[in-house]
Amino acid sequence: MNITFMLVLCIMTGVLAFAYAVYLYRWVRSQPQENAAIRKVCGLIQMGARTFLNKQNQILIGFAGIVALAILLFLPKPFWKGSFSENLVNAIAYIGGTLLSALSGKIGIEVATIANGRSAYAAKTDLKSSFMVGFRGGAVMGMAVVGACVLGVSLVYLLTGNTQTVLCFSLGASSLALFAKVGGGIFTKTADIAADLTGKVELGIPEDDPRNPAVIADNVGDNVGDVAGMGADLFDSNVASLAAALVIAQKLDSISSFNNNVITVFCYAGLGLLASLIGVVTAKIGKNGNPTGALNSSTYVTTGIYAIMTAVATALFHFSWRIWAACILGLLVGVVIGITTDYFTDNSRKPVHNVAHASKTGPAFTILSGISYGFLSALPALVGTGVSTMISYKLCEGIDPALSSEYALFGISIAAVGMLSIVGMIVSNDAYGPIVDNARGLAEMGGLGDEVLEITDELDSAGNTVKAITKGFSIAAAGLTVIALLGTFMSEVNDAAALLGMEKLSGFDVMDPLVFFGMLVGAAIPAVFSAMLILGVNRNAQRMVEEIHRQFNTIEGLKEGKCDPEYNRCIDIATSGAIRELIPAGASAILSTIVVGLVGGVKAIGGFLVGNILSGLLLSLFMSNSGGLWDNAKKFVEAGNEGGKGSEAHKAAVVGDTVGDPFKDTAGPSINTQITVVSLIASLLSTLFLTMSLFK
Amino acid sequence: MNITFMLVLCIMTGVLAFAYAVYLYRWVRSQPQENAAIRKVCGLIQMGARTFLNKQNQILIGFAGIVALAILLFLPKPFWKGSFSENLVNAIAYIGGTLLSALSGKIGIEVATIANGRSAYAAKTDLKSSFMVGFRGGAVMGMAVVGACVLGVSLVYLLTGNTQTVLCFSLGASSLALFAKVGGGIFTKTADIAADLTGKVELGIPEDDPRNPAVIADNVGDNVGDVAGMGADLFDSNVASLAAALVIAQKLDSISSFNNNVITVFCYAGLGLLASLIGVVTAKIGKNGNPTGALNSSTYVTTGIYAIMTAVATALFHFSWRIWAACILGLLVGVVIGITTDYFTDNSRKPVHNVAHASKTGPAFTILSGISYGFLSALPALVGTGVSTMISYKLCEGIDPALSSEYALFGISIAAVGMLSIVGMIVSNDAYGPIVDNARGLAEMGGLGDEVLEITDELDSAGNTVKAITKGFSIAAAGLTVIALLGTFMSEVNDAAALLGMEKLSGFDVMDPLVFFGMLVGAAIPAVFSAMLILGVNRNAQRMVEEIHRQFNTIEGLKEGKCDPEYNRCIDIATSGAIRELIPAGASAILSTIVVGLVGGVKAIGGFLVGNILSGLLLSLFMSNSGGLWDNAKKFVEAGNEGGKGSEAHKAAVVGDTVGDPFKDTAGPSINTQITVVSLIASLLSTLFLTMSLFK
Repeated sequence: MNITFMLVLCIMTGVLAFAYAVYLYRWVRSQPQENAAIRKVCGLIQMGARTFLNKQNQILIGFAGIVALAILLFLPKPFWKGSFSENLVNAIAYIGGTLLSALSGKIGIEVATIANGRSAYAAKTDLKSSFMVGFRGGAVMGMAVVGACVLGVSLVYLLTGNTQTVLCFSLGASSLALFAKVGGGIFTKTADIAADLTGKVELGIPEDDPRNPAVIADNVGDNVGDVAGMGADLFDSNVASLAAALVIAQKLDSISSFNNNVITVFCYAGLGLLASLIGVVTAKIGKNGNPTGALNSSTYVTTGIYAIMTAVATALFHFSWRIWAACILGLLVGVVIGITTDYFTDNSRKPVHNVAHASKTGPAFTILSGISYGFLSALPALVGTGVSTMISYKLCEGIDPALSSEYALFGISIAAVGMLSIVGMIVSNDAYGPIVDNARGLAEMGGLGDEVLEITDELDSAGNTVKAITKGFSIAAAGLTVIALLGTFMSEVNDAAALLGMEKLSGFDVMDPLVFFGMLVGAAIPAVFSAMLILGVNRNAQRMVEEIHRQFNTIEGLKEGKCDPEYNRCIDIATSGAIRELIPAGASAILSTIVVGLVGGVKAIGGFLVGNILSGLLLSLFMSNSGGLWDNAKKFVEAGNEGGKGSEAHKAAVVGDTVGDPFKDTAGPSINTQITVVSLIASLLSTLFLTMSLFK
Repeated sequence: MNITFMLVLCIMTGVLAFAYAVYLYRWVRSQPQENAAIRKVCGLIQMGARTFLNKQNQILIGFAGIVALAILLFLPKPFWKGSFSENLVNAIAYIGGTLLSALSGKIGIEVATIANGRSAYAAKTDLKSSFMVGFRGGAVMGMAVVGACVLGVSLVYLLTGNTQTVLCFSLGASSLALFAKVGGGIFTKTADIAADLTGKVELGIPEDDPRNPAVIADNVGDNVGDVAGMGADLFDSNVASLAAALVIAQKLDSISSFNNNVITVFCYAGLGLLASLIGVVTAKIGKNGNPTGALNSSTYVTTGIYAIMTAVATALFHFSWRIWAACILGLLVGVVIGITTDYFTDNSRKPVHNVAHASKTGPAFTILSGISYGFLSALPALVGTGVSTMISYKLCEGIDPALSSEYALFGISIAAVGMLSIVGMIVSNDAYGPIVDNARGLAEMGGLGDEVLEITDELDSAGNTVKAITKGFSIAAAGLTVIALLGTFMSEVNDAAALLGMEKLSGFDVMDPLVFFGMLVGAAIPAVFSAMLILGVNRNAQRMVEEIHRQFNTIEGLKEGKCDPEYNRCIDIATSGAIRELIPAGASAILSTIVVGLVGGVKAIGGFLVGNILSGLLLSLFMSNSGGLWDNAKKFVEAGNEGGKGSEAHKAAVVGDTVGDPFKDTAGPSINTQITVVSLIASLLSTLFLTMSLFK
C-alpha cells in the first residue's frame, strides 16, 4: 500500500463527505416552511448568528494573524536561522486549520438555522418527517466537520510530509475552537440566563415570548454554542488526535521495521469517516417510531461497521492487529463511558430522582446533591480512560521489542483516533439537538398547535438524551487525545534535544521537583479558566439584563406586544461581551504555560500538562454532568413529580438548572479546548523551553 | 549533640506543654460562671459531646483493633516469616497513635465545653476577660495536640529507633483523624442543617432557641467538629510530617557524611512546640483591644521566635543552613498562603462583596460566583506549594552531591515540618473560634443582655477571620506533608525492593501507563470521597429533621416552650448517622488504594498518590474557601448590605451558606485526612504491591 495512494483515497472520502453534506443541505432547504411567523423569527435567528460569526471572525483574524506571524518568524526556527519557506508553510497550515474549522462551523450554522423552522413545520405532517429534517440538518454539520478534518490533514501531509506542519494545522483548529466553543458558550448562556431572568422571573411571560428582547439572542445562542461551538470543538479534538498519532507514526516509520504506521493512521481515519457516512445514510425511523432509538442505533451501526471495515483493512494491508485492537478498544471505551456517564443524567435513573427529591427541601439541597453526583460521575470516565490508556499501551509495546516505549505511546494515540473515529456520527447526533430544540420554540411562536408541540417535545427530549451520551464521549475522547499529545510533546522535545546535541528525556518523573511544580500549577489552570468563564457569563448577563430593562422602560407598547423589541442590541451585547470575557481567560491559560516553561523548562511543562489533564478531566466531567443532571431534574419535576410546576421543589430545581447552565454549556466543555491549545503550544515551543529556562 | 539527649529534651518539652495545658485548664475552670440557664445548657453540651466521643470510641476500638491485628500479623513481614516482636511493637505504636490523638481531642473538648460558658459570663466584665477565657481554652487544645505529637514521636523513636514504627504510630493518628475529623464533620453539619431547616425556616424561631430539639446537637457539633476534629486533623498532619522526614533522615544518617539529620528533625520539631508555648504565654490584648489583632500578632510572634531559635540551634549544633532555609521557607510559604487565601473569604474584600451583590439576582448567582471564586482561590496555594517544593528541593540537593535526590526529598519534608512547626499556635487560634462561637449562643440563651452580645459578637467575628487563615494554612501544610509522604513511599518501596533483590525505582514516570492509570484513578478519589460525605450529611440531616418533626408533633407544650425537647435523641441520630456515613467513604478510599496497588503495582500506586494529591488539594481548597466565602457573604448581607436581613439577597445568601456548610466543615477539610491515610497505607503495604500485582 502506497502512502500517496492512501492520502488520495482519504482526500476523496473527504470530498465525498462534503458532497453528501451539500446534497443534504439542498434536501433540507427544499423542505416546505410556509408559516410567516416562523419565517420571520428564523430570519432573525439567521441574521443574529451571522452577526456573531462575523464579529467573531473579525477578532479571530486579528488573533490568528498575530499567531501566524509568530509562526512565520519563529517556527520551526527563527527565520534568520532556518529556512524561511518552512516557516511560511507552517504559517499557511495554521491559517488553513483556522479556515477549514470556520468553514465547517459556518456550514453547520447555516443549515441549522434553516432546518429548525422546516423541522417545526414538518411536524405538522408527522414525527418521521420532522425527525428527518432535524437529523439530516445535523448530519450536514457532521459530514462537514469530519470531511474537513480528513481532507485537511491528508492534504497538509500530502503536500508537506511534515508532522510539525500538521501540528500547526491543528493549532489553527484549536484557535478557532477557542473562539467558537468558548465564545459561543459564553454567548449562549448570557442570552439564556438574561432571557430567563427578565422574562420568566421578572415579567412572568413564557420562555420563548417574542416580546422579550433577548429571545432571539437566546435562539441564536443555541446555534452558535451548541452547533458551531460543538463542531469546532470536535473538529479540534479530531485533528489533534490525528496530529498526535502522526508525529509518533512518522518517527516509527523511519526507525522501525514495520513502516506502515502513517498509512494505518490515515486508513483508520478515512474508514471512520466512511462508517459515519454509511451510518447517516442508513439512519431510519418508523412513521411514529422512537427518535432516541433511531439516533442511538445509528451510532451503534456506525461503530459496528467501523470495527468490521478496519478489521478487513488490517487483514488486507497487513497492519498490526495489536494496533487495530487498541483502536477498537478506544472506540468501545468511548461508548461505555458515554453510557455510564448517561446514568448520572438520565431522567429515569436514581441520581435525577434524588436531586429532584432533595429539591423539596430547598435549593441548597438541589445544589449539594447535584454537585455530589457530578463528582461521582467523574469516576467511571476517569477509570475508563485510565484502563484504556494502560491496555492500549501494553498491547502495542510488544509490536517491536526494540521500540517498546515508542509503540506503546503510539498505542495510546491510536486509541484516541479510534475513540474519535465515529465523530461524524457523534456530531450529527449532537447537532440534531439544538435544531429540534429551536424547532420546538418556533412551533410555539408560529402557533402550530398542541399536536405539533407534542411531536417537537418528543424530538427535543430525544436530543437531550443523546446529548448526554455524546458529551461524555467527547470529553473522554478529548482526554485521550491530550494524553496522546503529552506523548507528542515528549517526542518533540527529544527531536529538539537531538538537534541541539542535548540529552534525551526518558520521561517526566513526578519525584522531580520541576515536574511536581508544573503539576501543581497545571492543576490550578482549568479551575481558574472555568472560574473566569463563569464570572464572565455572569457579568455579561447583567449587561444584557440592563439592556432589556432599558427597552421595556423606553420602548412604548413593547410590554403589550404592539411593537417589536430591538433584538439586535441584545445580540450585540452577547457577542461583544463573549469575546471580551473570552480573551483574558484564554490569554491567561496560554501565558501561564509560557511562564511555567520559562521558569521550569520542559520538565515543568511536562508536569504542567499532566496537572492540566488530571484536573481538567475531573472538572469538565463534574461540571458537564452535574449541569446535565440539574437540567433533567428540573424537567423531571416539571413532568409532575415532587410537586410539579410551581411547587417549591420546582423553584429549587430551577435554581439548580441556572447554576448548571454555564457549567454544562460554557465552562465544562471549554476545558477540552483549553487543554488542547496549551498542549499544542507546549509542543510547538519545546525548543524555546529546552534552551531558555530559569531552572533546568 | 547526642540523639538520645535530643529525644529526652523533646520529651521534656512535650511534658512541659502538657503541664502548661493542665495549668491553663485549671485556670479556665476557676473562672466564674454563675448563670443558671447557661450552666444547664453547658451541661447538656458537655454530655452530648461525651455521647459522641464514647460512641466514636466504641466503633474506633473495633476498627483500630482490626488494623492493629493486621499489623500484628503482617507488618513489616508476615509473622511466620519475620520477627513477631517487631510486628508487636508496630501494632502497639499504632494503638499508641490512636490513643494519644484521642486523648488530646478529649482534653480539647472537655476544656472547650467548660470555656464557652465562662467566656460568655466573663463578657459581663469586659472584652479582655472574655477573650482571655476563649483564648486560653483554645490554647489547652493547642498545647495538648502538639505536646502529644512531639512526646509521642520522640518516645516511639527513643524506644525503637525504627522509622517504620513511627509510620505505624502515624497511621494510628490518621485512623483517629478519620473518625474524629470526618465523623465530626458529618455530625456538626447534620445538626447545623437540621436545626436551621426546622428552626429558622419552618418555625421561624431564632438560631439558638432552646425549644429546638437539634439546638444542643448543633452546639455539640461545633465542639466535636471544630475542636476535636480539627485537633485530630492537625495532630495527624504534624505526626505524618515528622514521620515522613524521619524515614528519609534516618536513611541519610546511615549513608551520608552528614549524620545529624534525625537530630535536626527532632530539634526543629521541639523548638516549634517551644515557640508556640512562648507565643501562647505572651499573648496579650488591651482592655478593649482588637481580638483579631491579638490572635494574629501571637501567630507572627511565634513565627519570629521560631525562626530565631532554629537559627541559633543550627549555628550551635552545626546543622546545615540549607535545611534551615528549607524549614523557614515552608513556614513563610504557609503564612503567605494563609494570607492570600484569606483574601477570598475576607468580609472587606471584593470576592465577598461580589458574591453578596450577585445574591440580589437570586441564589443561582450566589452559587455560581462563590464556586468561581473558590476555583480561583486554589491558584495561590497551589503555586505557593509548588514553589516551596521546588525551592526546598533545589536548596537541599546541593548538601551532598553524591546523595542529591535523597537530600532534595529531605528538603521537601523539612519544609513540611517547618510549615507545621507553629501548629501549636495554629490549633490554639483555631480552637478559640468554636469556644467564642458557643459563648455567643450561650450569652443569648442566658439572657446576658445586648452589651454582652456585642462583645461576644466581636470575639466571634475575630474567630471567623482567623479561622480562614488557619484553614488555608492547614491545607497547605497537609499538601506539603503528603508530598513528603510520596517521597517516603518511594523510599519504602526501594527498601523493600533491596530486601527482595529487585530493581530499585528511580521515580514515577508519568509516561509510564501504570503511573498514568494510577493518576487518573487517584484524581477521582477525593471527588468521590467528598461526594459520599456530602450525600451522607444530606441523608443524616433528613433523618434528624424527621425526628424534630416527631418531637414537635408528639411532645405537648414543646412549641410553647413549656417543656424541654429530647435533645439526646438528636445527638444520637447525629452520632450514629455520622459513623454510618463515614465508614463507606473511608472504606472505599482505602479499598481503591488496595485495588489499584494489586492491579498496577507500586508504579500505579505512585501515580495514584500523585493524582490524589493534585485533585485533593484542588478540591479541598475550592470547597473550604467557597464555603468560607458564602458564610461571610451572608454575614455581610446581614450587616445591612445589599438589602440586609430579610431581603431577597439575604435569602439567596442563606442558600449559599447552607451549600457552603458541608463544603467547608465536612468535605473540604476531610480530604487531607483521606490523602494522609491512603499515603500511609501505601507506604506500609509497599512490599505487598511490589510482589503481588497484575501488571508490573
